[in-house]
Amino acid sequence: MNGKVYLVGAGPGDPELLTLKALRALREADVVLHDELVGHEILSLIAATAGTHNVGKRCGQQRITQDEINALMVNHAVKGLTVVRLKAGDPLIFGRAGEEIEALRRAQIAFEIVPGITAALGAAAAAQVPLTHRHLASRVVFLPGHRAVGASHDSQPLIARDTTLVLYMPGDDYGGISRRLRATGLDAMTPCAVISQATTVTQQIQETTVGQLMEAAPLPAPCVLIIGAVARFATQALSPRLATGELANCWAQL
Amino acid sequence: MNGKVYLVGAGPGDPELLTLKALRALREADVVLHDELVGHEILSLIAATAGTHNVGKRCGQQRITQDEINALMVNHAVKGLTVVRLKAGDPLIFGRAGEEIEALRRAQIAFEIVPGITAALGAAAAAQVPLTHRHLASRVVFLPGHRAVGASHDSQPLIARDTTLVLYMPGDDYGGISRRLRATGLDAMTPCAVISQATTVTQQIQETTVGQLMEAAPLPAPCVLIIGAVARFATQALSPRLATGELANCWAQL
Repeated sequence: MNGKVYLVGAGPGDPELLTLKALRALREADVVLHDELVGHEILSLIAATAGTHNVGKRCGQQRITQDEINALMVNHAVKGLTVVRLKAGDPLIFGRAGEEIEALRRAQIAFEIVPGITAALGAAAAAQVPLTHRHLASRVVFLPGHRAVGASHDSQPLIARDTTLVLYMPGDDYGGISRRLRATGLDAMTPCAVISQATTVTQQIQETTVGQLMEAAPLPAPCVLIIGAVARFATQALSPRLATGELANCWAQL
Repeated sequence: MNGKVYLVGAGPGDPELLTLKALRALREADVVLHDELVGHEILSLIAATAGTHNVGKRCGQQRITQDEINALMVNHAVKGLTVVRLKAGDPLIFGRAGEEIEALRRAQIAFEIVPGITAALGAAAAAQVPLTHRHLASRVVFLPGHRAVGASHDSQPLIARDTTLVLYMPGDDYGGISRRLRATGLDAMTPCAVISQATTVTQQIQETTVGQLMEAAPLPAPCVLIIGAVARFATQALSPRLATGELANCWAQL
């Protein structure tokens, strides 16, 4: 009898931002196939008896192809194992889950998707930036940084008043992003916040503007950029975090 | 000494989709101010000693103003209490958190934002729809249904190839939405999925197209509409859910 696959979002970094369901899946898994970006604090929650494989790709150096990841999931499940495919953030936002869903359906493997806190929401919470606001922004656009704004003819109209843009993985070329944003007609004074390693102990937040982004020193990946009037809410206030040990105590008391 | 306020996302409905941090906040709260849409299963997790107030507005009948909610948060915190402001989904997406952040900062009350699984991600996970896909969609737009697409001159450009739209709270006028989407140039054959009460036991999923949406019977609120090529992934497969009692057992074993 086939096992089951869980496509699980690990959230933005803080292990306390796992959902209860994600934690349960990690504790029940026989095999965990995880991305590079999932931190060791979260990996430490996996049952000691489970097999854990890093299937992430780093720095453009392709270690395992998507087809190979799909095959690993299917092959483990066919052996009757419970497989967790663990992704940073949410599996359905910039997570290549589409191809995994197709592979699992083709192989007729039962699977379930456990959503996670996507990077934009983790970063916004950490910087205290409302992504929508009654007077400032009524819609939100998530864009991949590598494609970024202004890169093609159809990006320009996204830059409307009343819109918050969130760029995932903007890379290091802030000057290029700043130029492209301004080329689409966005005012240089438009607020902008760079949030690096949101919700982790190494989190950094930089408040700037689209114009000043030009001169900003790149912060360590993973980052998101929040662009629009609401970004003026950004603050560097660091949220207190629990260490994994305290977390375990916390759970024990539930 | 002042207490502290937590702006907490309750997620889309399934109590297992609370984050660990949200659950901790609920267990530690002295006072919980919650929206109408937060379900009883989640409210049952609040400590029995806490004061619980429904500050939600229903059916256009304004029961408590935003200013009154802000005052409640501040007044409880000034008394030294731990206050949880509990919102469905994520507090920073269509949650009016911006005004609450402003009020808390003005009153110099310490606060923290605990992100939640926003409705779009809960619905996408439930219907197994990847919101981005290497070949189908490289960006995602969240729009409020009441403003919807086509309602103003600047909405039209959002309807690009390569984009997934998610409409929050589309209301009952599917015909109007269908007409406006088509008026912006979207093909009638564009896939569309209506997800009602996602991740709850009463979840319903309807796969349709922008053209056929015209004739679809409205599903019970809260709903989201996912529009774009990826919506063809939508399936009615219901995820198995744990009852609250089973959940408690589950946590006890962690």
